[in-house]
Amino acid sequence: MNTIGNLFTLTSFGESHGPAIGGVVDGMPAGIPVDMEFIQQELDRRRPGQSSIVTPRKESDRVEFLSGVFEGKTTGTPIGFVVWNENQHSSDYDNLRDLYRPSHADYTYQCKYGCRDHRGGGRSSARETIARCVAGALAKLVLRYLGIEVWAYTSQVGELSLPGDYRSYDRAEIEKNAVRCPDAEMARQMEAYIARVKSEGDTVGGVITGVISGVPAGLGEPVFNKLHAALGSAMLGINAVKGFEYGMGFAGARCRGSQVNDVFESHDGRITTRTNYSGGIQGGISNGEDIYFRVAFKPVATLLRDIETVDTQGNPVVLKAKGRHDPCVLPRAVPVVEAMAAMVILDYYLLAQSHKL
Amino acid sequence: MNTIGNLFTLTSFGESHGPAIGGVVDGMPAGIPVDMEFIQQELDRRRPGQSSIVTPRKESDRVEFLSGVFEGKTTGTPIGFVVWNENQHSSDYDNLRDLYRPSHADYTYQCKYGCRDHRGGGRSSARETIARCVAGALAKLVLRYLGIEVWAYTSQVGELSLPGDYRSYDRAEIEKNAVRCPDAEMARQMEAYIARVKSEGDTVGGVITGVISGVPAGLGEPVFNKLHAALGSAMLGINAVKGFEYGMGFAGARCRGSQVNDVFESHDGRITTRTNYSGGIQGGISNGEDIYFRVAFKPVATLLRDIETVDTQGNPVVLKAKGRHDPCVLPRAVPVVEAMAAMVILDYYLLAQSHKL
Amino acid sequence: MNTIGNLFTLTSFGESHGPAIGGVVDGMPAGIPVDMEFIQQELDRRRPGQSSIVTPRKESDRVEFLSGVFEGKTTGTPIGFVVWNENQHSSDYDNLRDLYRPSHADYTYQCKYGCRDHRGGGRSSARETIARCVAGALAKLVLRYLGIEVWAYTSQVGELSLPGDYRSYDRAEIEKNAVRCPDAEMARQMEAYIARVKSEGDTVGGVITGVISGVPAGLGEPVFNKLHAALGSAMLGINAVKGFEYGMGFAGARCRGSQVNDVFESHDGRITTRTNYSGGIQGGISNGEDIYFRVAFKPVATLLRDIETVDTQGNPVVLKAKGRHDPCVLPRAVPVVEAMAAMVILDYYLLAQSHKL
Amino acid sequence: MNTIGNLFTLTSFGESHGPAIGGVVDGMPAGIPVDMEFIQQELDRRRPGQSSIVTPRKESDRVEFLSGVFEGKTTGTPIGFVVWNENQHSSDYDNLRDLYRPSHADYTYQCKYGCRDHRGGGRSSARETIARCVAGALAKLVLRYLGIEVWAYTSQVGELSLPGDYRSYDRAEIEKNAVRCPDAEMARQMEAYIARVKSEGDTVGGVITGVISGVPAGLGEPVFNKLHAALGSAMLGINAVKGFEYGMGFAGARCRGSQVNDVFESHDGRITTRTNYSGGIQGGISNGEDIYFRVAFKPVATLLRDIETVDTQGNPVVLKAKGRHDPCVLPRAVPVVEAMAAMVILDYYLLAQSHKL
Repeated sequence: MNTIGNLFTLTSFGESHGPAIGGVVDGMPAGIPVDMEFIQQELDRRRPGQSSIVTPRKESDRVEFLSGVFEGKTTGTPIGFVVWNENQHSSDYDNLRDLYRPSHADYTYQCKYGCRDHRGGGRSSARETIARCVAGALAKLVLRYLGIEVWAYTSQVGELSLPGDYRSYDRAEIEKNAVRCPDAEMARQMEAYIARVKSEGDTVGGVITGVISGVPAGLGEPVFNKLHAALGSAMLGINAVKGFEYGMGFAGARCRGSQVNDVFESHDGRITTRTNYSGGIQGGISNGEDIYFRVAFKPVATLLRDIETVDTQGNPVVLKAKGRHDPCVLPRAVPVVEAMAAMVILDYYLLAQSHKL
Repeated sequence: MNTIGNLFTLTSFGESHGPAIGGVVDGMPAGIPVDMEFIQQELDRRRPGQSSIVTPRKESDRVEFLSGVFEGKTTGTPIGFVVWNENQHSSDYDNLRDLYRPSHADYTYQCKYGCRDHRGGGRSSARETIARCVAGALAKLVLRYLGIEVWAYTSQVGELSLPGDYRSYDRAEIEKNAVRCPDAEMARQMEAYIARVKSEGDTVGGVITGVISGVPAGLGEPVFNKLHAALGSAMLGINAVKGFEYGMGFAGARCRGSQVNDVFESHDGRITTRTNYSGGIQGGISNGEDIYFRVAFKPVATLLRDIETVDTQGNPVVLKAKGRHDPCVLPRAVPVVEAMAAMVILDYYLLAQSHKL
Repeated sequence: MNTIGNLFTLTSFGESHGPAIGGVVDGMPAGIPVDMEFIQQELDRRRPGQSSIVTPRKESDRVEFLSGVFEGKTTGTPIGFVVWNENQHSSDYDNLRDLYRPSHADYTYQCKYGCRDHRGGGRSSARETIARCVAGALAKLVLRYLGIEVWAYTSQVGELSLPGDYRSYDRAEIEKNAVRCPDAEMARQMEAYIARVKSEGDTVGGVITGVISGVPAGLGEPVFNKLHAALGSAMLGINAVKGFEYGMGFAGARCRGSQVNDVFESHDGRITTRTNYSGGIQGGISNGEDIYFRVAFKPVATLLRDIETVDTQGNPVVLKAKGRHDPCVLPRAVPVVEAMAAMVILDYYLLAQSHKL
Repeated sequence: MNTIGNLFTLTSFGESHGPAIGGVVDGMPAGIPVDMEFIQQELDRRRPGQSSIVTPRKESDRVEFLSGVFEGKTTGTPIGFVVWNENQHSSDYDNLRDLYRPSHADYTYQCKYGCRDHRGGGRSSARETIARCVAGALAKLVLRYLGIEVWAYTSQVGELSLPGDYRSYDRAEIEKNAVRCPDAEMARQMEAYIARVKSEGDTVGGVITGVISGVPAGLGEPVFNKLHAALGSAMLGINAVKGFEYGMGFAGARCRGSQVNDVFESHDGRITTRTNYSGGIQGGISNGEDIYFRVAFKPVATLLRDIETVDTQGNPVVLKAKGRHDPCVLPRAVPVVEAMAAMVILDYYLLAQSHKL
């Protein structure tokens, strides 16, 4: 159950403080040049220590491919990869061995497995998302070839929220600021806000908006495995995510049908929709318009404050503030959202291919 | 790709105006008494014609089991079932043969398959959810035995929204009103609102809240197949759903960590949480608290008004108002939400069983 | 676990003496004309009562499609189907309720499920293979379009075995005799032999040879899901099958490498092999040559003799001879072998399509 | 498609001459002590250079676990592992770049992927079975705890075949000779035979017999995923395997039902069978008796002789004898057969657990 996808799959492994995070990408099309610089760059977008508003931990996070690549190109066979863990101060976590941190997975792991690697959250650590970024970068290499683009940005941090939709902003702006917001002024406010939250030993949540353009019409399955259900499942699989909506989303619940129907039009022999409340997907299948969606992240559970909790015997204890955690995961989660979306779209592209005789 | 689940699965088949809707439930535990009255009652909650605020179509929707049941009990073998379609006025749909209705799946089916059964939406019709209600009812029979309860209610219709969370209302009230809202006064307002929307030839969206109680701690998978990801995927697979959130959901994006951490406590040797912002799931695995979630539905796309659109050649046409559609799907979608949730929980219960040596 | 296939799947349901045998075929390509006459003819080849050497039970076995077909063509949506059970003398089986027949699945079902439908073997009855013949016939309709042919014949009955390989015989002869052997003289001997075995209240095993021609090079997976592993698994899933071999098979165990290497040659720009000991598959992937394989069937376990066994309490009992069983399943299993092979080949064809960008 | 199993799965990766062979084992039960000595010993049984009758290549094949093990025990999370490739003389294979070796996967890989890693067979190399031995060793650690034993031996090499079934021989003898045959005298003959074949630059096939004892009754699925179908598929996935049979196997095809029915008996309240022609599986489900099966291996395709073939343009060429290959793979395939069997049995054990409420 550590695998995602149908025809393009990632099986991930690794704990925060074990020897490595890694995975196997299966179903990668053959003959794709492996642009190592691009892949590493994707990992660097996720890496700690990029700016003052994320965790200062130093991890180089270099990916090493072990198979499936020959003479610089994919061979179609599974791509095994590892990213070695460094900076493992395991003893830093000795205080977590015998207690359950609130709103973490310590207690539920113990219930499920009867044991757990307590160091840094073990398998439940967001460090596992490195594997997803590697697989997502590989998927993006194929999507690029197919003319499909996937991008995401921070659209809300706490109370601060971008008012417009994705077409209102300049995509080129996103990587220019530490918070990955496409509006420079809002980015400044968000950064200041995160800095203040951090200084108070607190954390804050937010929303990431994702966009996929260039998707051909006809990708998706009509009943249980709708394209947006796959996207939703992928996003809900990211650490700290509490909600997913696409197209008109929760706002659609307030609307009348007469307000949000997407009228079809024909331009130069191509059928398009005048509006896109549907979010590029109708009946679970892409219609050729942009797909866009929003992902809600809760605030990080680890605070730089003393926290009440219980030990594994149920006795009340106080967990002392310690560690180097992100006050807000949004900036570093943007590439993870993109990676998951890229994997899903490529997977569904391959599924659609399969039935063309 | 018309199958949901890992160990408890439903494979559904059927089109709105074909001979039947049906499915195969595989992985049903053996020896469970098949309470036919209960199952039919679940289907009746989904059936058209229950009240003045849903479609007046007359469909009896009787389920017929074809296998997997012997002498009144399940045998552990797959349960095939059918619900015969009645009331099929196929010629009513001749006007849809050559055009694409806005915000329906007509165009995307054509793109995916190169053909489609245009009658009543064919496979994309919400009539397919009958199969889910049958499977969900079977799952509920097992969950009842395990002490797990699944229930849902309409918490928002258009602008009208219940202010409190699920603990604020009386579950017994839900089935007493046509809109399936647990607050009698709000139910009256919602019904009046839906009646007005209907009289204007329009439709309206809303939100359904779902609750699962009695879930043992330890169900779920930690990475891609998190318990809430499976729930989300299941909900996003219901017709007209545009969003899913659980626990604090999108509201969590506005919050500080210090506000929403769920402090652990110990009572009589059982570890619980003081609050439940997590929504009963931490790190993708149940923690024994109530699971609760919200599902956003867009307004029905079929209006009782003339609608502009294009024919299959791309020429502009006007689709004349016609038919007997729901002004608001929420009341009839409540049992579908429950059914999907019940299937997911049973599936994950079986998954958790498998690894206990 | 009642589903076979990856992209072209059959989920089957039904017990011998329940209301119906049926299934859902998912992944059927759209736009294929559904040749009902052909499909029924495939079922008729499996049907009891065809000749004096098979069971005289009368079952009409008419298939009824419930979905996925519109205006005579497949739509790409799942095809639900049923074959109603007739001739159900359930009380005939009252003597089996409290005992376990030797070499049947009575005891193992009880161990697995804690209960069983004892009538005619319930789910373990070979009557379930009707569902496979329907799915296989649908697959054949697609394969025909792709220029791929699947055929099989009885090559051994008890001690009587055809000496040559599949190229030695006239395929057109197969359906001309009751035993489905491509050599008329051997067919006569086999029929006489089966008649004698039957008159003695006994049963006999045999071997079916299968051939698949016109398969393009490149179908298959290189490691666990090798094309021949999928074929083997499919064949071993047929009732009474005890062995599977392809190409040189068990005979290859006796050979030297120098005897059985298939030398490549080039003819008109097409690479072929001079011999075909490999059986059309190398490294798990088709090489464009004919695929051929052999499937071993044990003798039917139900004899027309009194049989010693135990009741469900473990007490020795004698089961009285009774019923109308096949003295040899081979003739009726030939279409089942073909059906399974057709499903596997189509499934792998779709898999191969998926990765062509 | 490089994954095997349902609940206990192995996803393998790696090419013969890439950086490493490795994999991810998912579904490993938690809390199992990881006996590294045992695991390495299993790898050593597969390793080249063990004796004069196998390839003299020197590979140390040390496994390195990267996750899923904490403080010496499994944690229930996926176990990633690598075995680094050494001794990679990639340039040794330059002569294979532009030609297709007979009866290897060179040509079929090219057809499937449009490219290939030509060095030592790339992904199709039997070196990939290292990953299976690691996963199989982990499975055996669990099976040992459950009282289930899996073992195998060489029962035929070319014309030399052990006459008796597995109960006729001394299991303790197997690891005492280089050929892994449980009869010391036959082992001597087989070794001499292989030595002679080797001296002639030739290779030879054979048969491995596998046995699984201590399996509880009730493991298996009744229709497509029969326990023996899963075993067969696993065995047919091993390099060079051409056939699989279990219980009476192909010999059953010659038999009368009256000869091979397994009469039930009751001893001390436990139901057993007097004979075991069924091979421990009835109707696809284990009956508590020993499971036994036979696996046919063709001779290795690489000869130490000049071989005619074609280049990638289809021109005839002669491939010069070269390399260090096994004259007979049987001795080194014995642990691979055991590994695959162990994985399948554990997987089905977990499946059976899942439905016990």
